[in-house]
Amino acid sequence: LFSHLMSYLWLFFYALLGLIVNAVHCLDNGLARTPPMGWMSWQRFRCQIDCQFYPEDCISEKLIKRTADRLVSDGWRDVGYRYVIIDDCWQSKLRDRVTEEITADAQRFPNGIEKMGEYIHSNGLLFGIYLDYGTLTCEGYPGSMDYLELDANSLAKWQVDYVKVDGCFSPQERMPGGFEDFGKYLNKTGRPIVYSCSYPAYIDWRSNASVIDWERLKRNCNLWRILFDVQDSWSSVLSIIEVYKKFGSVLNPIAGPGRWNDPDMLILGNFGLSKDQQRVQMGMWCMLAAPLLISADLDRMDSFSENLLKNPYLLAINQDSGGHEARFIGEQHGVQLWIRELEQEPQGWSIAFVYPVDGGGPIHLPISLKDMGVKNTELFEEEDVYYSLTDVFDGSVFGKVKLDEKFFVHVNPTGIVMFRVHKETMDYYMDFYIL
Amino acid sequence: LFSHLMSYLWLFFYALLGLIVNAVHCLDNGLARTPPMGWMSWQRFRCQIDCQFYPEDCISEKLIKRTADRLVSDGWRDVGYRYVIIDDCWQSKLRDRVTEEITADAQRFPNGIEKMGEYIHSNGLLFGIYLDYGTLTCEGYPGSMDYLELDANSLAKWQVDYVKVDGCFSPQERMPGGFEDFGKYLNKTGRPIVYSCSYPAYIDWRSNASVIDWERLKRNCNLWRILFDVQDSWSSVLSIIEVYKKFGSVLNPIAGPGRWNDPDMLILGNFGLSKDQQRVQMGMWCMLAAPLLISADLDRMDSFSENLLKNPYLLAINQDSGGHEARFIGEQHGVQLWIRELEQEPQGWSIAFVYPVDGGGPIHLPISLKDMGVKNTELFEEEDVYYSLTDVFDGSVFGKVKLDEKFFVHVNPTGIVMFRVHKETMDYYMDFYIL
Repeated sequence: LFSHLMSYLWLFFYALLGLIVNAVHCLDNGLARTPPMGWMSWQRFRCQIDCQFYPEDCISEKLIKRTADRLVSDGWRDVGYRYVIIDDCWQSKLRDRVTEEITADAQRFPNGIEKMGEYIHSNGLLFGIYLDYGTLTCEGYPGSMDYLELDANSLAKWQVDYVKVDGCFSPQERMPGGFEDFGKYLNKTGRPIVYSCSYPAYIDWRSNASVIDWERLKRNCNLWRILFDVQDSWSSVLSIIEVYKKFGSVLNPIAGPGRWNDPDMLILGNFGLSKDQQRVQMGMWCMLAAPLLISADLDRMDSFSENLLKNPYLLAINQDSGGHEARFIGEQHGVQLWIRELEQEPQGWSIAFVYPVDGGGPIHLPISLKDMGVKNTELFEEEDVYYSLTDVFDGSVFGKVKLDEKFFVHVNPTGIVMFRVHKETMDYYMDFYIL
Repeated sequence: LFSHLMSYLWLFFYALLGLIVNAVHCLDNGLARTPPMGWMSWQRFRCQIDCQFYPEDCISEKLIKRTADRLVSDGWRDVGYRYVIIDDCWQSKLRDRVTEEITADAQRFPNGIEKMGEYIHSNGLLFGIYLDYGTLTCEGYPGSMDYLELDANSLAKWQVDYVKVDGCFSPQERMPGGFEDFGKYLNKTGRPIVYSCSYPAYIDWRSNASVIDWERLKRNCNLWRILFDVQDSWSSVLSIIEVYKKFGSVLNPIAGPGRWNDPDMLILGNFGLSKDQQRVQMGMWCMLAAPLLISADLDRMDSFSENLLKNPYLLAINQDSGGHEARFIGEQHGVQLWIRELEQEPQGWSIAFVYPVDGGGPIHLPISLKDMGVKNTELFEEEDVYYSLTDVFDGSVFGKVKLDEKFFVHVNPTGIVMFRVHKETMDYYMDFYIL
């Protein structure tokens, strides 16, 4: 009996040890089970601190308030865009002399950063902010490298829900450990805070993916910026998609609930993308289970962009509980083929056709679901299984096809066609089984 | 008396000689006194010859007819878009065995090219077609290099009004003389045909502008393609504008009534440009006195693009009788400053502000007309002269300013602001003079 008891005790001890080790070495905040959705200031508002000439655009309480108000009044919050993330340039140039804390710029945030967060929370939104694991932030504000614990505690005190930690003015060799350390301090605060790491954005892993310890990254961060900043242009969006296309074997396996590759903000709703190109970014960011962080002026967004960002079919794909990232299947006649597995009802797949050519007219591509990598895993014979295709951009039913049946997709230059696919067993067959 | 008579005779003789020399050595068809406006198939429809899978898009009688119909029914013709230009791939692969003439593809143009032209003319439109000064056209159809006179005569017989002569499969050293020769044969037919030369598009004159005899070019062609083909992308449009910016001293002086630099087709109304970017192309093509050749599917154009292409303020600037090309003045805070002199009432200028940055928000630029290169050439004192600014995109009055008065323009990233400017002398001053 005693030996039994002892062995149980040992088991208990090991289990406890495991939990402790886990708590120390692994970010396990239970957050970001699906890709975070919200708004982030950087791409559209940059480091605009001139509130005299740019009263509407400068990084300030006013901008954040009007954005929060708009997120609520226009229903953004209710479709899932809940994080309001203030990027660089919210800070004073110097830390507080006494407490050494980072403080908000007194002119632009006259009520302080904590009050800013309260305003955001009072609107049923979540509060995100920006730090930098370096000696300075990218725009020259106080860096956090030597203040990791202090700054983590500040975040908790300010009731922050999401932190983007950038990597400017930071030695590359210190990044893996540094980002890990900050995660530990975040855990230690006891407040669940989504942890967005800009590591490995600053490291050229594309010439040699093994320079990054991807497993460690995955343990340490809820999401991580994989690349350079997105810009408000088609060439920027396309170049990001090309990275997923080329490095799917690196990126696909590490993404999942609680841990996401971050290709940077949604730029649509601004100035640089055509309608087709806006569809490509939104469609592919959803295919890729990317965070959906709008960076646009919500007071000046046209209805096309707004409807696209709120499209329920797309959001359901992005937020699918499986958290699978789309895989690149191949190219046919210059059209990129992508597939993502979906776990939520109606179970199945989303498939996308991206035609990056910048000229001419729409291509008419004959293709089958088999070509796209859809597999019949059921017991039914292939000829008895149909697949229904729904156009995610307008919700229309495109049709029903068998697995190897060719259908035509018409894809615009710099455009996308995207379907949600689910399996349907023929009724008579079902009837047969029910009988 | 006799000597007087003789001298008159000599004068007459010289004058006659001058006319003959002129007729032989100089294209003087009286055409294209303002930049040609119309529709051209290439950018949107390329060499689509598969009428089975692309029945709406293939280069065929059907496409040209529906385009001509649309030009009439939607009022394009009546605002000035009159040339219907069929680019490459209208031909049979081989010349006629007997006559050696180029003939239209029999499947796609079952009624022949002459009937096609008749249809176009019967709609009050003008008929344009494509040849190539080379052994083959760019897409491998019969070239005209060794058939200059024959093909010129065919054009006249077919009642062609505009010919684009491309430069594929053509030795560079033969181009200047070859394009000149073809112009002579065109003149010889007696039919006025706008002559568009793709020389010097294929020659890298940007590393050394003196490789081109610009004066000869100007004598030989009504318009000439200065660059590579435009593509359906912002980067393509911007790269063309950058050439005008950099090589204004070469390009500005040679343009004028009857002779135009051709930066290639208008791509707006297709897939690759945002609204702001569409405004930039249309605005700058008008500033630059460029031919306005739409290459889009007129059956599928949205109202934004259509209104932009038909904008009366912009068209008036493009078609200004002075034919002056906009000059690049300089850059302020990343904003390009352009000015064009206008001769038609209300005399004055058009000025444009292009902000090519692909990120962030609108810039607010303080500027004066003096900064833009506007000069007061009147007798009135500067302080008594006002200038009115009209926003050409919406026709609204922006305001009245003095020459050195600063005003703010707000330019979107990859966007443009453009004003028509004219001088107004203050009323009381005018009254004084009238008294």
